Amino acid sequence: MRRAVALAARGLGSTSPNPVVGCVVLDALGRTVGEGWHQRAGGPHAEVHALTEAGGAARGGTAVVTLEPCDHTGRTGPCTRALIEAGVTRVVYAVADPTPDARGGAATLAAAGIDVEGGLLAAEAAEVNAAWLTSVRHGRPHVRWKYAATLDGRTAAADGTSRWITSAEARADVHRLRAEADAVLVGSGTARADDPHLAVRGVPGAVQPLRVVADTEADAVKPGARVLDDVAPTVVAVADDLPGDATAHLHEHAEVLRIPRAAAGRGLDVTALLAALHARGVRSVLLEGGATLAGAFVAARAVDRVTAYLAPALLGAGPAALTGGGITTVTEALRLAVAGVERIGPDLRVDATPAPAASAAASEPKES
Amino acid sequence: MRRAVALAARGLGSTSPNPVVGCVVLDALGRTVGEGWHQRAGGPHAEVHALTEAGGAARGGTAVVTLEPCDHTGRTGPCTRALIEAGVTRVVYAVADPTPDARGGAATLAAAGIDVEGGLLAAEAAEVNAAWLTSVRHGRPHVRWKYAATLDGRTAAADGTSRWITSAEARADVHRLRAEADAVLVGSGTARADDPHLAVRGVPGAVQPLRVVADTEADAVKPGARVLDDVAPTVVAVADDLPGDATAHLHEHAEVLRIPRAAAGRGLDVTALLAALHARGVRSVLLEGGATLAGAFVAARAVDRVTAYLAPALLGAGPAALTGGGITTVTEALRLAVAGVERIGPDLRVDATPAPAASAAASEPKES
Repeated sequence: MRRAVALAARGLGSTSPNPVVGCVVLDALGRTVGEGWHQRAGGPHAEVHALTEAGGAARGGTAVVTLEPCDHTGRTGPCTRALIEAGVTRVVYAVADPTPDARGGAATLAAAGIDVEGGLLAAEAAEVNAAWLTSVRHGRPHVRWKYAATLDGRTAAADGTSRWITSAEARADVHRLRAEADAVLVGSGTARADDPHLAVRGVPGAVQPLRVVADTEADAVKPGARVLDDVAPTVVAVADDLPGDATAHLHEHAEVLRIPRAAAGRGLDVTALLAALHARGVRSVLLEGGATLAGAFVAARAVDRVTAYLAPALLGAGPAALTGGGITTVTEALRLAVAGVERIGPDLRVDATPAPAASAAASEPKES
Repeated sequence: MRRAVALAARGLGSTSPNPVVGCVVLDALGRTVGEGWHQRAGGPHAEVHALTEAGGAARGGTAVVTLEPCDHTGRTGPCTRALIEAGVTRVVYAVADPTPDARGGAATLAAAGIDVEGGLLAAEAAEVNAAWLTSVRHGRPHVRWKYAATLDGRTAAADGTSRWITSAEARADVHRLRAEADAVLVGSGTARADDPHLAVRGVPGAVQPLRVVADTEADAVKPGARVLDDVAPTVVAVADDLPGDATAHLHEHAEVLRIPRAAAGRGLDVTALLAALHARGVRSVLLEGGATLAGAFVAARAVDRVTAYLAPALLGAGPAALTGGGITTVTEALRLAVAGVERIGPDLRVDATPAPAASAAASEPKES
């Protein structure tokens, strides 16, 4: 199953709106005879790739798959039928399929006399599929907020300079995150200050993500902005009450999405923005800043993963990574759990995910 | 030598103003026959402890010691004579002794026909002795700045609450840091806001550090402050231009040090404060905040190690860990190198030390 999860991960960034899935087929003696992963939406599912590679050796064997095999006919036939026809006698999967259309695969397989087991390495398999599972469960894209800061939490110096706080290695890692995401999102402050390009560089075979700028007043993305080139598609999200000609300078090079304003505070309504992106097929968003937009996402509890690149450096002044978020006292802090710590060149990369259970526990007195 | 370094570490916090030293004596067949460490200033040196344990078995054997054996008679006799009299034929040490009085040990041993080798595991041995080596080389105490913050760099929430940002495990670890330090230092802001106790709790056998409050105007440490109890000695550092009666409320429970004011900005002159503590025998200072005092130390380039406890939590508002420091643009950032990352309960502990070489390299363009 660990191998199947690794295979699934190869599909990150190119299967949306489908899940990533990996599959290993073992013959009757337990030898690996086929491997596959879901490579792109509309293409064959992981099971079909693996069964094709296995051929007749699958008969009497086992299919190990990261997601419960689908039981419906979409752009491809149901995987349950392919598994039954290939003659496998055992199917082991990690995560049950939560979608109304596709689920039921395990029951269909069992009804066909196949020995079915679910739940193996479910946590690992769910993590690699976090984007898709979030989108199915919550009806919105998975949001990873990424930022780069000094150890003392500054994203720029007092004079606004920030090139470079983190190392070339850390910046290259960000391009890998972009390549895994369906969309990369920044706010108007970042668009105005940095004129970012937001495309993927240096990742062979990467599918360019959708570039999204939340530009409420349609005044931050100027004609000639780097994000308006033709390297990747671009969406500019603006307030839905702007006059029609306010976005005239954008239409030639970008799609304009009109989104309601936030009920409180400035900017766009985060939930509506995510819903609009979800409707457009986006299942994962890499939120790259700035601090205000990230604060709006924290306030909407719409951050599913935080990836912090921390440079071992001190500035003592300059903007913070996160402003706003509606938290006024320490017991309201958004508590996370560390999912991983890695050294990237001289820097640290810290991954963390919201920990609702841990948060409740943390508010209890612990010391006796 | 790794064992000798571990033995040396047992003396942290109780040998000042002496170094920590560990020693392992091997017999002629290479078996460990004696171990020792320097336990307290004025007490026997590590070599003497280890040789005593080894007894006659040291003859023809090897002494492995973390610091070049001393060659002078202070409160105890020279270790070189003890080694020669014990009949060891080989001495391996890690770090050369930089003090004018004590050095020359290696030459004395070699002149007595002993095979002497220096430099083994020197980096590890220097790290455990960082406080003492800093004090010898720079004539001031080693300063470790410790802070606790959220992943987004806040040390408290917007309303000032900070109990607790980090976990009980992280707070217990801070008590271990206090136990290793000769002095624990906070500024007037922290004294006023938190009324901290600054003593060590929960560390068996710990020597209480000197508690030091930088209280420039002598108005932050009030009568009845917790730091004025008799659990540990306390120094209150005040401006040297205050009228004599300004410190009347302190004299019964604390020693008052009068220090010149900083030439620029508010507060005391950091260099003068450190010199006064050094003169008082302090070789290591744990700087516990607040942000303004830490900024003054960063500006004076008087931070030798940073220990950050980072809680996986987001606040989005509230004070930063470091303010001031005189850095205005990113190329002036105080660049550090990560010395270690550790998980302490749910939190992260990041240790970093200034990296002058890395800093110079970082300012060069790196990407081609």
